Amino acid sequence: MPADAPVREQTATFRPVAEGMEQHVNVYHPVLDHGFVAVKDYMGDDVSVLQMARMSYGKGTKSLADDRALLRYLMRHLHTSPFEGCVIKLHVKLPIFVMRQWVRHRTASLNEYSARYSIMPDEFYLPEPAQLAVQSKDNKQGRGDTLSPEQAAEVLRLLREDAQRSFGTYHKLLNADEDGNPIEEDGFGIARELARIGLPVSAYTQMYWQTNLHNLMHFLRLRADPHAQYEIRVFAEKILEIMADWVPVTTEAFRDYQLEAARVSRMEIALLRDLLAGKASIADAASYGMGTREIREFQTRFGV
Amino acid sequence: MPADAPVREQTATFRPVAEGMEQHVNVYHPVLDHGFVAVKDYMGDDVSVLQMARMSYGKGTKSLADDRALLRYLMRHLHTSPFEGCVIKLHVKLPIFVMRQWVRHRTASLNEYSARYSIMPDEFYLPEPAQLAVQSKDNKQGRGDTLSPEQAAEVLRLLREDAQRSFGTYHKLLNADEDGNPIEEDGFGIARELARIGLPVSAYTQMYWQTNLHNLMHFLRLRADPHAQYEIRVFAEKILEIMADWVPVTTEAFRDYQLEAARVSRMEIALLRDLLAGKASIADAASYGMGTREIREFQTRFGV
Amino acid sequence: MPADAPVREQTATFRPVAEGMEQHVNVYHPVLDHGFVAVKDYMGDDVSVLQMARMSYGKGTKSLADDRALLRYLMRHLHTSPFEGCVIKLHVKLPIFVMRQWVRHRTASLNEYSARYSIMPDEFYLPEPAQLAVQSKDNKQGRGDTLSPEQAAEVLRLLREDAQRSFGTYHKLLNADEDGNPIEEDGFGIARELARIGLPVSAYTQMYWQTNLHNLMHFLRLRADPHAQYEIRVFAEKILEIMADWVPVTTEAFRDYQLEAARVSRMEIALLRDLLAGKASIADAASYGMGTREIREFQTRFGV
Amino acid sequence: MPADAPVREQTATFRPVAEGMEQHVNVYHPVLDHGFVAVKDYMGDDVSVLQMARMSYGKGTKSLADDRALLRYLMRHLHTSPFEGCVIKLHVKLPIFVMRQWVRHRTASLNEYSARYSIMPDEFYLPEPAQLAVQSKDNKQGRGDTLSPEQAAEVLRLLREDAQRSFGTYHKLLNADEDGNPIEEDGFGIARELARIGLPVSAYTQMYWQTNLHNLMHFLRLRADPHAQYEIRVFAEKILEIMADWVPVTTEAFRDYQLEAARVSRMEIALLRDLLAGKASIADAASYGMGTREIREFQTRFGV
Repeated sequence: MPADAPVREQTATFRPVAEGMEQHVNVYHPVLDHGFVAVKDYMGDDVSVLQMARMSYGKGTKSLADDRALLRYLMRHLHTSPFEGCVIKLHVKLPIFVMRQWVRHRTASLNEYSARYSIMPDEFYLPEPAQLAVQSKDNKQGRGDTLSPEQAAEVLRLLREDAQRSFGTYHKLLNADEDGNPIEEDGFGIARELARIGLPVSAYTQMYWQTNLHNLMHFLRLRADPHAQYEIRVFAEKILEIMADWVPVTTEAFRDYQLEAARVSRMEIALLRDLLAGKASIADAASYGMGTREIREFQTRFGV
Repeated sequence: MPADAPVREQTATFRPVAEGMEQHVNVYHPVLDHGFVAVKDYMGDDVSVLQMARMSYGKGTKSLADDRALLRYLMRHLHTSPFEGCVIKLHVKLPIFVMRQWVRHRTASLNEYSARYSIMPDEFYLPEPAQLAVQSKDNKQGRGDTLSPEQAAEVLRLLREDAQRSFGTYHKLLNADEDGNPIEEDGFGIARELARIGLPVSAYTQMYWQTNLHNLMHFLRLRADPHAQYEIRVFAEKILEIMADWVPVTTEAFRDYQLEAARVSRMEIALLRDLLAGKASIADAASYGMGTREIREFQTRFGV
Repeated sequence: MPADAPVREQTATFRPVAEGMEQHVNVYHPVLDHGFVAVKDYMGDDVSVLQMARMSYGKGTKSLADDRALLRYLMRHLHTSPFEGCVIKLHVKLPIFVMRQWVRHRTASLNEYSARYSIMPDEFYLPEPAQLAVQSKDNKQGRGDTLSPEQAAEVLRLLREDAQRSFGTYHKLLNADEDGNPIEEDGFGIARELARIGLPVSAYTQMYWQTNLHNLMHFLRLRADPHAQYEIRVFAEKILEIMADWVPVTTEAFRDYQLEAARVSRMEIALLRDLLAGKASIADAASYGMGTREIREFQTRFGV
Repeated sequence: MPADAPVREQTATFRPVAEGMEQHVNVYHPVLDHGFVAVKDYMGDDVSVLQMARMSYGKGTKSLADDRALLRYLMRHLHTSPFEGCVIKLHVKLPIFVMRQWVRHRTASLNEYSARYSIMPDEFYLPEPAQLAVQSKDNKQGRGDTLSPEQAAEVLRLLREDAQRSFGTYHKLLNADEDGNPIEEDGFGIARELARIGLPVSAYTQMYWQTNLHNLMHFLRLRADPHAQYEIRVFAEKILEIMADWVPVTTEAFRDYQLEAARVSRMEIALLRDLLAGKASIADAASYGMGTREIREFQTRFGV
């Protein structure tokens, strides 16, 4: 948590208030070894989504008068624009390599701590031993079995020593400690924008990140997914928890129609029809134009 | 104002509150003959902008401790991302031809009343006589002298009759009045999405429009400008008034460094240097590579 | 087709060339009664998509060495960024009410004919009789049965007369014919930006519209869909035909994994598993949390 | 230059061809010690910009029939959308810390080499001695005097040793050399996505980056500026050279009205008017509401 975390104070407002979200404003949730995520501000709630939708459809929404039904209808039919009316602003502290994945989501606003202006704090990410795993054999971007305790300790020792050495060089080049005080009378004092080039991508940075609920759900679909790298997934999962307090009906619909839903291809639809009609067995799948991997995933999903 | 305009009610929040903006929430300001603009929600204030900026610069901002100075510095140097942290959501009722200019601002979220789902109300824009002007001679997209009262009355009569006739046809095709009740037992009842194709672009539509402060300023730079069409400019001017209550320090800086500022070209800079040094007179302007129109605008701006 | 449609001429280039697309460059395809769509320029082809993808995955793509397999893998897993490397620029002539749906796709560049600068040609859309249908009973935004020939003729007469009258008023207000020549010595001559406010939304406008292949597919998913309004769907279908000539492998994968695919909810997955395992019948669907309409659509899709 | 740089081959096309740009297609220009920039594809030229503009303005552009004049008019009045019709696709190899600045330009498409899928090559950026400078006293994010040759050598030794050590650890953790071959029979072999977390931000990465001409000019305005960090500025300057071959008339107008132009505030306009009228001297500047730094910059710009 930042040293200067603000005091939580209440004021009166005429705006919509999401009761479940108020408990999160300015509360810092720890993530990984030195990171955090905190809600700085938000706009809208489940009712705001409905209000935007009802304006579009006018009297055409009469038959979907029930709030929950309308919200689920919007989610199911990917009528996404009413969800853009809700906005969240987060303060996040995260390793640079996680930040590099995060910024690929372009439809968001962000301000990052600048290593050109300011000195980077001496903080870097070290995985917990349970996260140290070998390269997965069948998933090109994933992890397989974890290391033995001895191997894990050795890996962490190497990562820690390299990072500490890089931060040592950083301060030597800057000729400044973390608070900007000179170290030696006659040190280098090279420009901050240059001194930082040897820092590892495990170093922590910070940002304010703001996005609307539609884009947040897109972020969560990709980053709260089991295929996402663990170190960004833990941030996404924490944000998904916060979202459930903020917009509970939307979150339930999001789980049902998106996060835990699946897309079935033209070939899978044909196969499912024939399986249900007793006209085919799973052994015929290849003849529907599906590849080996698609068939394996189909079997896992539908238990056949 | 819409028949179902919500009651204004206060609730407590832990979020930042912009005192000057609270008075606008859910208040409907009339614009043109049947239009309006109302703040439905907002996020952030002048202090939020600074907070986002200070996070970027970290300890590097100490020397710009003064809030107003930092905010003006950001505006002057077009450091726009901290302004993205403020968001405004408006309910706007406006003629279709104004809407068509408005949607060209793509970095915003909007939900518009749907003429496929719902019946369009019988409302269309008629200019005030003072706005009825002939085509400008020197501005291809502008207005020149206004019409005589007799001519104005005749123009308005033509526009009114055509619009009324089009709405008449609309209801005949729908076989429905404004509330959706059938008119004749045996009427056409054709699909709403088709029945509306004869309605004029002066017909009123509605939308929820949401954008961040950075994009709002871009909108205002173009639409509160004297070259903007009058019918969108009056909306922009009303929104600029609201902005001044919301983020007063930002608005002042916006006027000083953007709205009432100007861009001077490489050639104009050279000419200004030589004029100030007494090495040239305005009669030499063409030799700096400036066109006739540029020279005329230069003279107006700098009084030479 | 525009009077000044350019001559087709060939030049040599070092850029990638999509053979199937070359036949479309500067060829005007008619759509609706006065509209058209023409390819003005394009960038990239199926191979470009692969090239971008292979750069990301580096040596990690070895096992997907087969081009078609890699392209289908990208489409299936919604790895959309490689498709952004292909761009299409279209010249489109379309009714204003279709344009108003089209511009809702914000991630595109467009330049529209300006009714503030120039005089609108006397062209408006009239549906073919076969398109004149009553409001659908069960689809709030759709069409049901078509009108009788007599009714259709009467509807078209009303729409034609209103449009002609509006264009008549337009020219009277402008005091100018289609070519800008004055009609009367003493006419109104009011500003073009005002004179047009009585024109119907069926009037034709024109634009250059440019988007990348990823965003084009999003457009087509929504607008080539049976739920889209007929008048925009015919444009989308023509563009989909052009796309099939441009990027044939991508188009096939797009059909298989997106256009003719479906999303199944968490509840539908559970129901499908139990149906396939013989543990449930379709009569149990409601107990899985599915609504009446969801169940009906499920039955249609899977033939149960 | 990449080992697998493609052969340059010509094909016939019906599309617009920019002669000056053809010489750049698939030609790799070196930047920094291991980086490069290469044009992979492009769309449009100066004439395409005019074609889009003329479509918008219709017959309203008659008085700007001269091509160069119209293009300069568009640039001067920030009518930016016609420039969006030109697109450039680049292959860029650059240090991670430069990439982190580059991706902040969100209105572009990019595909980056993935360190989750593939092994990072052993390449990292080391500044030339002439670039090794101390922190600027008056520019918080800039460089001041350069180091002595002895100091520079010592700084480079530190940076090189740390980077080599980090890459050594990387391969040890991966248990793989640059080609993916195992090093030891019994090595760690940990997941690529984890093994890379100790690599420095000076390590080289690669991307395909594609943007339209409007957004490219925005990028160049910020990154070809003297305040940009040297290591991104050299990329921007090379791209600006390429742009001058691609769209020479646009580039000249861009220099005149944007790159070498300036924005003058409301206060500066008032001061300039009074200076030119002999009603004020530069000593009065503070009374116009200008700060110390603004006055200094005003004096430098206008030579007073």
